[in-house]
Amino acid sequence: MKKKIKKVNAAILIIGNEILSGRTQDKNINFISNWLNSKCGITVEEVRIVPDAEKIIIESIQILSKKYNYIFTTGGIGPTHDDITAKSISKAFKVKYEYNKEAYKILETYYGKKKFNDGRKKMAKMPKGSKLIYNPSSSAPGFIIKNVLSLPGVPSILNSMIENCKRYLVRGLKIHSRTLNLYTVESNISKQLGLIQKKYKKYVDIGSYPFFRLGKIGVAIVTRSSSVSKLKKVNIELNKLVKLKKIKILKL
Amino acid sequence: MKKKIKKVNAAILIIGNEILSGRTQDKNINFISNWLNSKCGITVEEVRIVPDAEKIIIESIQILSKKYNYIFTTGGIGPTHDDITAKSISKAFKVKYEYNKEAYKILETYYGKKKFNDGRKKMAKMPKGSKLIYNPSSSAPGFIIKNVLSLPGVPSILNSMIENCKRYLVRGLKIHSRTLNLYTVESNISKQLGLIQKKYKKYVDIGSYPFFRLGKIGVAIVTRSSSVSKLKKVNIELNKLVKLKKIKILKL
Repeated sequence: MKKKIKKVNAAILIIGNEILSGRTQDKNINFISNWLNSKCGITVEEVRIVPDAEKIIIESIQILSKKYNYIFTTGGIGPTHDDITAKSISKAFKVKYEYNKEAYKILETYYGKKKFNDGRKKMAKMPKGSKLIYNPSSSAPGFIIKNVLSLPGVPSILNSMIENCKRYLVRGLKIHSRTLNLYTVESNISKQLGLIQKKYKKYVDIGSYPFFRLGKIGVAIVTRSSSVSKLKKVNIELNKLVKLKKIKILKL
Repeated sequence: MKKKIKKVNAAILIIGNEILSGRTQDKNINFISNWLNSKCGITVEEVRIVPDAEKIIIESIQILSKKYNYIFTTGGIGPTHDDITAKSISKAFKVKYEYNKEAYKILETYYGKKKFNDGRKKMAKMPKGSKLIYNPSSSAPGFIIKNVLSLPGVPSILNSMIENCKRYLVRGLKIHSRTLNLYTVESNISKQLGLIQKKYKKYVDIGSYPFFRLGKIGVAIVTRSSSVSKLKKVNIELNKLVKLKKIKILKL
């Protein structure tokens, strides 16, 4: 981790027909967002899910890498024909797509020279100039080139690698959050909530999310801010509102 | 449902800070994709998740609505200050944001005149010219304007409304799929798989997805096509490959 700066953001690019077709429920967005938020103070500001199609991957990388501090990609770095992430990112940055010597060595050692076939060798091919993101569970490394970090799509493998991304990231201010679970409906408090949000617009984000729990309807009021004191102030106002409206709080 | 045409595609735009922050695991992408695929023959080709921020919602709607046949949005159509989807879509299409008479009546009847407060009235405000997507579970309707269909973010409510989208959609060719679960690793078959994909490039999509089940490593080979006969042909070739390599098939 390098020096702290104020606001650091990221986008996630999920590459894979299996997510778009509905065959597979994505779990990586939630995992990466939570990790970036809680461990690095980095806010995910956009996610895109695109098919295994070179043109759209190239275009997405070019747009997102200009717009955000970091881009995390998942999927498409395995040995099969539909794994085109590394090649597409090379094209997006107009650098060579070639064997990374270190990755080649890691994979050759892992599989043994005899079993190191073409499919496996393909996993050592990356954009020229990439640095590796080590993979403690199945050896095939991810990579970082410029501000793009490429990880595999299988959640258990991705999860095992995420800590190895940290060394490449500049940390942002930690975002703190509080949740107030209320047994009420949104429209009962929407007006006052809007006024509180207006007052603290610059410092605190207030979100309102309906829920159903144990047969009851409720609303989770989530406040998020990099300032703990501002967060406290907003929550004092929210608690006043709750008292005034005689709303029951759900303790979890 | 109107007349069949060949290929119909869609994008999904998820609007909500709670998904981006990792607080909430999205379930709507998977549900909508599966429904569009299986019930309407419509292929989801892109998904974006964006914050509750007017500028980025407007931009996303303008870009996606030109690129795809349909756009499904989820989230941001409730009564609170962070619900800005309807207003943003109005701006994206440069139409008025105003009370929809039918929606107003539905909500007024549901809540009763006395309890129909400003927050609840807000849910009747939509882009001028919208048609309603009825909501059997909590009354507040979604809407369709041009090729954009707006649904709420709460999965149980969204699920109850989805069938009411059908009347507005042109159906595409049904996409059929087969899955072959193999006890092998991707790199053992990647070369041959690539050749089969090349041969049937025009008609069949072949995806390869590693899995772990009961402590064993496997690969799911998913073939997708609008032509059942082409799908059969590819699967005959895949079965030949499985036999040749002496790979065990996992029957589910």
